[in-house]
Amino acid sequence: MAAPPIKFGILGCADIARKVSRAIILSPNSTLHAVGSRSHEKAAKFAAENGFPESAKVYGSYDAVLDDPEVDAVYVPLPTSLHIKWAVLAAQKKKHLLLEKPVALNVGEFDQILEACESSGVQFMDGTMWMHHPRTSKMREFLSDSSHFGDLKTVHCCFTFAAEKHFLENDIRVRPDLDALGALGDVGWYCTRSILWAADFELPKTVLALRGTVTNSVGVILACSAFLQWEDGKTATFHCSFLANLTMDLTVVGTNGTLKFQDFVIPFEEHKASFSTAVKSGFTELVTGWDPKPSEHTVTTDLPQEALMLQEFSRLVGSIKFNGAKPEKKWPTLSRKTQLVLDAVKASIDKGYEIVEIPS
Amino acid sequence: MAAPPIKFGILGCADIARKVSRAIILSPNSTLHAVGSRSHEKAAKFAAENGFPESAKVYGSYDAVLDDPEVDAVYVPLPTSLHIKWAVLAAQKKKHLLLEKPVALNVGEFDQILEACESSGVQFMDGTMWMHHPRTSKMREFLSDSSHFGDLKTVHCCFTFAAEKHFLENDIRVRPDLDALGALGDVGWYCTRSILWAADFELPKTVLALRGTVTNSVGVILACSAFLQWEDGKTATFHCSFLANLTMDLTVVGTNGTLKFQDFVIPFEEHKASFSTAVKSGFTELVTGWDPKPSEHTVTTDLPQEALMLQEFSRLVGSIKFNGAKPEKKWPTLSRKTQLVLDAVKASIDKGYEIVEIPS
Repeated sequence: MAAPPIKFGILGCADIARKVSRAIILSPNSTLHAVGSRSHEKAAKFAAENGFPESAKVYGSYDAVLDDPEVDAVYVPLPTSLHIKWAVLAAQKKKHLLLEKPVALNVGEFDQILEACESSGVQFMDGTMWMHHPRTSKMREFLSDSSHFGDLKTVHCCFTFAAEKHFLENDIRVRPDLDALGALGDVGWYCTRSILWAADFELPKTVLALRGTVTNSVGVILACSAFLQWEDGKTATFHCSFLANLTMDLTVVGTNGTLKFQDFVIPFEEHKASFSTAVKSGFTELVTGWDPKPSEHTVTTDLPQEALMLQEFSRLVGSIKFNGAKPEKKWPTLSRKTQLVLDAVKASIDKGYEIVEIPS
Repeated sequence: MAAPPIKFGILGCADIARKVSRAIILSPNSTLHAVGSRSHEKAAKFAAENGFPESAKVYGSYDAVLDDPEVDAVYVPLPTSLHIKWAVLAAQKKKHLLLEKPVALNVGEFDQILEACESSGVQFMDGTMWMHHPRTSKMREFLSDSSHFGDLKTVHCCFTFAAEKHFLENDIRVRPDLDALGALGDVGWYCTRSILWAADFELPKTVLALRGTVTNSVGVILACSAFLQWEDGKTATFHCSFLANLTMDLTVVGTNGTLKFQDFVIPFEEHKASFSTAVKSGFTELVTGWDPKPSEHTVTTDLPQEALMLQEFSRLVGSIKFNGAKPEKKWPTLSRKTQLVLDAVKASIDKGYEIVEIPS
């Protein structure tokens, strides 16, 4: 007999919660159980519009979701400044925690969240969906194959989108009281995570923000760039911005091979995703062309990446709930490393573009 | 009646001269007339192996090529440290000058070459072949279309190749007495040129080399990275290296559009080349895919890019020779700007990664 599905409560009616609600429906081992908003009416509208079952609970507060004993896990897409309060409270109420990125305003706050999760024995995972796409594990195979890829030398990541006027004036991601990390916390989170992923989650030794950070009138980052350097000499650069056309590039260059894809956070299409590899690339005689040329690979998936994320999270929650397993440490560890690098980029900007060391 | 073809002399038997000899044959308005090497035997072998006509002259010195009154133009693929001597001498002997990159060890030397060209009224062009591919002008159309591309925000360029042991120990590009700029002067030249091209040849205001420059035991650069910043806030990064798999990426991101290609210096294939553009990229409902997606464009060419370079150079030389035209200033201007930025990267490395201002 299959275990019953993990019951989810959602805190807030953020846009991204629509996509995650659908993912909870699509994931075979999770189910929508409750949604809470500061307004009961808003929560009811959200539930009606996002496929919640008739039996689902609609609450006029976040507390009520956390107090519902049937809720196994909560998804928290609240503004970053509210994470510390609600993520800690959720953990204290023994709710397993799927938390949107950036996980916190800084690693100090995040450590409080992790301590709460640890002392309650609940699973933590952040909402970085692309980690769960089968393309990602296929690409990992390539990077891990030293005869094909060799040693990592450099990574470049660019994640930009052209925010509209309304976004730039009103979105929570440009408000210092809500998402104080701005573009760095939003698109920069993905750049940082993807670079760490490419480096097999070895932390860089130093981080240098590059000049030219663009901020809005209240000091929130709208665009910035950074340079990362590792002990062994490998390097990475990234650019993240709300001010340029949508671009999601990751290029990973090794001694023997190259990996590239241009839609690393959101694949161009939902049910298939591609990447390009090149191995021991060279030239034709007289250097008039390439031999061999890079090759394209396509990975299909029945479930979209966000449903695969929910499935994996619910599997871990189910192991704890039904089989007495311990929480999987991998996911909070990856979140923490990402936050550490984000913090270093922010610190470098704040110190006038000084080099910042990452604590090892 | 068509004008007679421009007669070329080649100084030295560098590998790249094989490709350019073929280009001179393919170009309808140029012809192989002479080759000179320090050894007559080597010159004769080169002429025999590279399709020189029976009537071609084979000389045992570079001077002899410059003293041949029938030679209209010379192609100079000598090591960079020899450019100042032979390029100046060629210009003084009224030979039009097609000079390999990097054009000089520094802009001071290059200015001496340009002065010699100007006072002799000869055409100057450097050997950056990709500038002459029809893809390049197609892409320029896209970048110039503000409704599609908008304003340039950021550029990233990566040009690497994995040099073999023999290259890393013996090639002129790793010898301080021959090509003292190493990877920066070789692959870095192309990165710099491509970034300037993307910025419509507006010079950056500042250049910062990024830490992690790799040098060989005698101090020649094998890998380095840099960050460029313009007055209006746009930025660029590049990485150039002899130590990683062959990669030739250029990504140009504007407010409205994106341009990408992955074979910017040498197209994957000789007779066609592709690039990708995206305009006002966005997401599907629920952000589960892209709409619109980027689109691919292919440009075909009968003549390879190096033959188109020869054709353009010979056209300019013919205008001077047969029609009394003045030399075209565009080409030396682009070379000089590229060298200025290279110099700034080198200066930044030499000063311990200080920011270097580009003289405006």
